[in-house]
Amino acid sequence: MKTYLDCFPCFLRQILDSARVADLSEAQQYELLQRVLVEAQRYDMSYTPSEMSSRIQEMVRQVSLSVDPYRRAKDHSTRQALALLPRLKELVRRAPDPLEVAVRLSIAGNIIDHGVVKEFDLESTIERVLREPFAINHLSALRVALTRCRNVLYLADNAGETVFDRVLIEQLPVPVTYVVKAAPTVNDATLEDAIAAGIHEVATIVDNGSDALGTLLYRCSPEFVERFWAADLIIAKGQANFESVDGSGAPAFYLLQAKCEVVSKHLGVPQYGIVLKHEPPRLGVVERELQNESARTRP
Amino acid sequence: MKTYLDCFPCFLRQILDSARVADLSEAQQYELLQRVLVEAQRYDMSYTPSEMSSRIQEMVRQVSLSVDPYRRAKDHSTRQALALLPRLKELVRRAPDPLEVAVRLSIAGNIIDHGVVKEFDLESTIERVLREPFAINHLSALRVALTRCRNVLYLADNAGETVFDRVLIEQLPVPVTYVVKAAPTVNDATLEDAIAAGIHEVATIVDNGSDALGTLLYRCSPEFVERFWAADLIIAKGQANFESVDGSGAPAFYLLQAKCEVVSKHLGVPQYGIVLKHEPPRLGVVERELQNESARTRP
Repeated sequence: MKTYLDCFPCFLRQILDSARVADLSEAQQYELLQRVLVEAQRYDMSYTPSEMSSRIQEMVRQVSLSVDPYRRAKDHSTRQALALLPRLKELVRRAPDPLEVAVRLSIAGNIIDHGVVKEFDLESTIERVLREPFAINHLSALRVALTRCRNVLYLADNAGETVFDRVLIEQLPVPVTYVVKAAPTVNDATLEDAIAAGIHEVATIVDNGSDALGTLLYRCSPEFVERFWAADLIIAKGQANFESVDGSGAPAFYLLQAKCEVVSKHLGVPQYGIVLKHEPPRLGVVERELQNESARTRP
Repeated sequence: MKTYLDCFPCFLRQILDSARVADLSEAQQYELLQRVLVEAQRYDMSYTPSEMSSRIQEMVRQVSLSVDPYRRAKDHSTRQALALLPRLKELVRRAPDPLEVAVRLSIAGNIIDHGVVKEFDLESTIERVLREPFAINHLSALRVALTRCRNVLYLADNAGETVFDRVLIEQLPVPVTYVVKAAPTVNDATLEDAIAAGIHEVATIVDNGSDALGTLLYRCSPEFVERFWAADLIIAKGQANFESVDGSGAPAFYLLQAKCEVVSKHLGVPQYGIVLKHEPPRLGVVERELQNESARTRP
């Protein structure tokens, strides 16, 4: 997803929010705001918004001399989510359609996003996301895809949301590789956060070699990029992964709440709409030929 | 009121909102956004936010070649408010305290502000503002001041809000001079808008010689500035008048809803809080002496 003009006011908001989380002084906040104003002037609109958001987090880490300003917020979110875990598991166990409920819960957990929303009510979000119709619903495609894939590459989003991911992973019929950030950015999950949520009990955890928001492939490790393109099914959580992976042609299912106005407009859904969106892989020449052939030879 | 860091994201939002009201293309919106980024870099934080907001409106008028992009919105607001006028008058007529209800209605009308809020529900705002306690309530000081002044200088805010002002003006016991902008900016009231609301039937209308938001005295006409400093009671409507007049030492009562987060924090009230705030005039040397003398000679 490219950057929209409406992302710019939000970039300024992000730098102020993050500078305050890092306990920076008014003067430091002003300095950072000035830096973003400069970068915004030469910003290429064809970049995804995650590029600028990643730069913003780098600036805050530089000025604050803190590698992980959201550490406390992340620990709090994980604890809060873990306290709900028995209830979440029970909801799935009792569901007539456990996969759907697990998908919904994983999307509910996406509300824990300190980059986009400052305040949220986790419990009421769970209730809402369990009840509300999907704004985009490619659940049946996901069901089919899960029967055909050998494994799932699961692109994680935020700490705490990890606990909700765990509930979904437990419902997946194939081995899962859970991808976290190699170093902290906003409240995105790192290895430490994934382990705190118990993901290591249900999946293999790898990092993507990057500390950028979402999945900016040119900033990821060669090992991860290879894994990414080899994946036959990707579950990508949250806005930043959607912004950065959408349009790449990867066989991805995007699970998110469209929390910001720009993303919700781009997707054509109401704000906070529940999205389970499938991006079918672009067919290569060989695949297209095979498909044509099977169409021609159909009785 | 000085500019806060949180005003900057809002400046970018303002330029986009106003460019769209003026039907500017995506490319023109981008150009204007770039201009605001440049101006924001060299912006003096001791200015009031109204300075930048005024610049933003100038830019939109320049690029759109329209002197009054909000004309249609203003006419709509005035018609909408005029349709409510009989009910507003009836509410005041039946009130045990007509001045309080008229003040509340005038503050309710302050929701019609296309610079700060894009959408609002006028009817539910009236109900809320009639019911809710004041966040700042200097009504008794206003009552006293009205018995002591010879006339009132009433600084208008938006078109449509003018109709609500008319209801308050009818309750004031002294002649009122109603001050509008000399030329259009956002949906601020000009002479045309004041007349459409019937203000000429209840007050003398003058303009302040300026097309800036609020009351930036250095941009007003010498006639108006003289009138301003000679006033013994000023009623100043809305955020921009508060931002620009507050701290000047003028004998002003500010009537507004604190619609934006920055103003509400500055005032220490909840967002959308109902404010009737008195700024007592700074005493001159002579007045202070007289006061001291009367204190000394008190029996």
